[in-house]
Amino acid sequence: MSFINDKFMLKNDTAIELYEAVKDLPIIDYHCHISPKMIAENYKFKNATELFLGGDHYKWRQMRTNGVDEKYITGDAPDYEKWLAFAKTMPYLLGNPLYHWTHLELKRYFDIDEVLCEESAKRIWDKVNACLERDEFSTQGLIKRSGVEVICTTDAPYDTLEYHKALKDFEVKVIPAWRPDIYDIKPDFGERMDYFHENGCRLADHAVDRMDDETINALITLGREYAKRGWVWQLHIGALRNNNSRMLKKLGPDTGFDSINDFEIARGLSKILDTLDSEGALPKTILYCLNPKDNYVLGTMLGNFQGGVPGKIQFGSGWWFNDQRDGMVAQMRALANLGMLSRFVGMLTDSRSFVSYTRHEYFRRILCNLIGEWVEDGEYPRDMDTLKKIARDICYFNAKNYFDFC
Amino acid sequence: MSFINDKFMLKNDTAIELYEAVKDLPIIDYHCHISPKMIAENYKFKNATELFLGGDHYKWRQMRTNGVDEKYITGDAPDYEKWLAFAKTMPYLLGNPLYHWTHLELKRYFDIDEVLCEESAKRIWDKVNACLERDEFSTQGLIKRSGVEVICTTDAPYDTLEYHKALKDFEVKVIPAWRPDIYDIKPDFGERMDYFHENGCRLADHAVDRMDDETINALITLGREYAKRGWVWQLHIGALRNNNSRMLKKLGPDTGFDSINDFEIARGLSKILDTLDSEGALPKTILYCLNPKDNYVLGTMLGNFQGGVPGKIQFGSGWWFNDQRDGMVAQMRALANLGMLSRFVGMLTDSRSFVSYTRHEYFRRILCNLIGEWVEDGEYPRDMDTLKKIARDICYFNAKNYFDFC
Amino acid sequence: MSFINDKFMLKNDTAIELYEAVKDLPIIDYHCHISPKMIAENYKFKNATELFLGGDHYKWRQMRTNGVDEKYITGDAPDYEKWLAFAKTMPYLLGNPLYHWTHLELKRYFDIDEVLCEESAKRIWDKVNACLERDEFSTQGLIKRSGVEVICTTDAPYDTLEYHKALKDFEVKVIPAWRPDIYDIKPDFGERMDYFHENGCRLADHAVDRMDDETINALITLGREYAKRGWVWQLHIGALRNNNSRMLKKLGPDTGFDSINDFEIARGLSKILDTLDSEGALPKTILYCLNPKDNYVLGTMLGNFQGGVPGKIQFGSGWWFNDQRDGMVAQMRALANLGMLSRFVGMLTDSRSFVSYTRHEYFRRILCNLIGEWVEDGEYPRDMDTLKKIARDICYFNAKNYFDFC
Repeated sequence: MSFINDKFMLKNDTAIELYEAVKDLPIIDYHCHISPKMIAENYKFKNATELFLGGDHYKWRQMRTNGVDEKYITGDAPDYEKWLAFAKTMPYLLGNPLYHWTHLELKRYFDIDEVLCEESAKRIWDKVNACLERDEFSTQGLIKRSGVEVICTTDAPYDTLEYHKALKDFEVKVIPAWRPDIYDIKPDFGERMDYFHENGCRLADHAVDRMDDETINALITLGREYAKRGWVWQLHIGALRNNNSRMLKKLGPDTGFDSINDFEIARGLSKILDTLDSEGALPKTILYCLNPKDNYVLGTMLGNFQGGVPGKIQFGSGWWFNDQRDGMVAQMRALANLGMLSRFVGMLTDSRSFVSYTRHEYFRRILCNLIGEWVEDGEYPRDMDTLKKIARDICYFNAKNYFDFC
Repeated sequence: MSFINDKFMLKNDTAIELYEAVKDLPIIDYHCHISPKMIAENYKFKNATELFLGGDHYKWRQMRTNGVDEKYITGDAPDYEKWLAFAKTMPYLLGNPLYHWTHLELKRYFDIDEVLCEESAKRIWDKVNACLERDEFSTQGLIKRSGVEVICTTDAPYDTLEYHKALKDFEVKVIPAWRPDIYDIKPDFGERMDYFHENGCRLADHAVDRMDDETINALITLGREYAKRGWVWQLHIGALRNNNSRMLKKLGPDTGFDSINDFEIARGLSKILDTLDSEGALPKTILYCLNPKDNYVLGTMLGNFQGGVPGKIQFGSGWWFNDQRDGMVAQMRALANLGMLSRFVGMLTDSRSFVSYTRHEYFRRILCNLIGEWVEDGEYPRDMDTLKKIARDICYFNAKNYFDFC
Repeated sequence: MSFINDKFMLKNDTAIELYEAVKDLPIIDYHCHISPKMIAENYKFKNATELFLGGDHYKWRQMRTNGVDEKYITGDAPDYEKWLAFAKTMPYLLGNPLYHWTHLELKRYFDIDEVLCEESAKRIWDKVNACLERDEFSTQGLIKRSGVEVICTTDAPYDTLEYHKALKDFEVKVIPAWRPDIYDIKPDFGERMDYFHENGCRLADHAVDRMDDETINALITLGREYAKRGWVWQLHIGALRNNNSRMLKKLGPDTGFDSINDFEIARGLSKILDTLDSEGALPKTILYCLNPKDNYVLGTMLGNFQGGVPGKIQFGSGWWFNDQRDGMVAQMRALANLGMLSRFVGMLTDSRSFVSYTRHEYFRRILCNLIGEWVEDGEYPRDMDTLKKIARDICYFNAKNYFDFC
């Protein structure tokens, strides 16, 4: 039996039945970091290394942890040698989500059942590369094959959005999302937001790497603008970035040297949301925390500002380092215990990769398994109609109703 | 089979056997927020909405999360419409303790086996209301049917305690608990404590919403007084209250707009306990944390000040937002790993509702299940006499011995 | 069946098979607090109380929690009465690691299958004491019987290391580890380190009880020295010590009055590691946290500074209060999800006791069970060769390769 088989991550019968009800739903990928340029140009990847390892700092970190020389990671080693170094690292990733993600990607996009390791590296390399020559493995091809309905990219305020415009007739909606530097708010941001709005943007995103007065005031200022425009905003709270100065100089940011911070967030976050709510200017909000110590802070903060639409304030899915089984389950259990899992807008890839749509499959399996456990443990009645509705809502319909994508 | 059946929350045979040994024990509800006036006047509820939704901000929050208009929550909608809005919300509470609590309450007090939802709302409304007309569903009737032996209410320093006095001959002991504002200690508090003491009070309770010098000093001052009188004190640490100014203006406090804070507590708490211990003035102490990140801080703080009586310093049961299966298990596992679960004084309702005594059943089932898991996993010998003794101690006898209720 | 049987802590078939592959591996106990003097003098314990309760503040805390008078803990009660007080406490330790540790120790060293309690106390006392008269139960005897290959003690900078010298011909390597007070760095520390190095020291250890500038600067200063010498350093972060002033005066430090602190660590720790890394002076590093809220901070901090050798920066095994099943599993799951469990250097006793080598067995069983669960849940292929290699690496070979013990 293949490692990635029908029952992957589904450990009870209810879960298997629920998964059948959600597996073919479309994907609304409302937050990711893929390049609109690469979509617009319908880019074709030259080989497995470019597709799997290009820009994927999750994998780079693990290769470094395994003692691989930087030459084979971001350096000038030939692509096959990089692939081989990655393949040799794979078996050591016992218990790590990369083990699951990679094999899901190999299976779903390339129909590869083998486990990646030194011995299989060449065969898999050849098989992936042969596929990549075909048109259906272009960026647009990969997106279409993945059942994606909407993609929100992440874009700087002065982006021309030319690629989004160029993609107007593409069958998958590719929408910009506004991601400003909150410490550098410019006088013409209002006009830029209008421009984004005209080009379909309905979503903003922010890194909240500290929670001081400057941050609080900046977010209040921005929040007002989003409320005016009916946008959703996302707060990604708690990263500690660019820890390694030596490598920052050498490779720049977003190259695998970020980690989790541990500052206090409750009081500041409350102030931001309360100030906006008091003014009648609180947008729909998605709160993400990077440090799981904050799961219960966020899970209860939501409830202070709910009202109007179901699940107006959302607890975002396990983010970044938490985007694995334990992390996703912890976020969902916190949300269920403290708020309303049934109104959750669910998964997003947050990814730079064109084969990471399988993370939605991963999420859906984990969600169905969690619900199935509750049911089989007698903690919720085995009312499959209601359960399927809830699962389908979380996997697709809640996001469809929550976001106002035209 | 009814959703609430004999095996509810009991997932192994040892658990089932243990639960038989504890299920009929009396209840010592040493901390709650029910109204002594309503007991003394033997209040009768006019309908299901008043009984289940009156003052219950846990439910209000979830209704708001589900997008229900405030009119149907705290507003002027007719009671049945409020009930219906609650019933419609219920199926969405997958994974939330309200789902369990509500169905336990419907089953135990009203013998209702149906699941609450839009379709069953009217039938259940009628059945509950018919019951509520009977005398045995008055406040005193509900308390007597619940097997309660002692109730400690929560009372302000200048309370006349007239209702407690009026209840002297009631067969269930109803005792005041002293709950001062720690930032407003008055010169005559000593006399007031004496007055409380004369009226049976042996327990104080405090909200510790920050851990600064003012808080530390106030608690030391108060602690001395409790030690003198042989009282137990409770510290409820870590709430962030009244987050929503708009709703605070409209509805006042305790209406569902509180959440979990994340300040540092270890050093300050140590100072309070150490100062009192140094003076020979450390009362029996129950520490509760709202943020589960503090479970291991509290679980180990206990051990610094134990001695004299078994379990002198207690780690209080999963509080407020943690009063659910995961939260209670996390508290009990922390306590067991770091201290001594066997000496735990167990559950309290912390509730404003007269049908929440079923939370003791909920706790007892979860406790028995946890112990049963350890035994069936071979982590403790299957010595049922010892295990039953421990379970019975936690459910009743430890509290009976710990508190000095006359 | 004995409580401590072949399947103890092994709950699935894969785990049982894996454990067979690791159980006879030698032990590298790279951090502990046993006395080199007692080894060098080949000390013989006078009875069970001295062996099991002498200096073991974990047990003292639990006895205090159980209400035992200090006279029977650290006081002048006769040894058998202390033993009896301990035996009476044992059944109450449901869910506590002491229950497992003690019974593992009784079984492995004294072949005792009985559970310790009041009724068995005298029989076990007699059996243990009879053994202790034999030479093979001397300190050296116990060490040899435990399959230990290397022991690193914990030594103050001005220690003469005379006992380590005296042990040069002992068949088990007994090596000093450098443990300075980081707030009292002396001018001649360089020379002292050289002296330690000559005597086999390759490892330093530090208590990091706060994370202020003084701490950060002291650690940077020390780190440089370790890098020069090719040493590994360990940072034990987050204890709150000597909470009970009254007992500190009476008994001194390390007597069971320490607990877990909750200060912020991410930013300071990043600064220490980054400063050293920037200078090319970052030693191999093992980071331990006492507060499990920091598991994800450490688990991701590692990845910022990896490179060169596999697992250069390590997340240390569940420390002190976390040295139990839940705590060890939490540390290993965090490490696996965020980094690379396969490169983990594994267990250490951190103990003052000569019978605590069974904690390596405890760890190995828990590790094998965790891996077995993943495999049986279909989260990693059932490739027993790879799995056995990984398990054996974590239990022995990773440490052997990581540390440069001559």
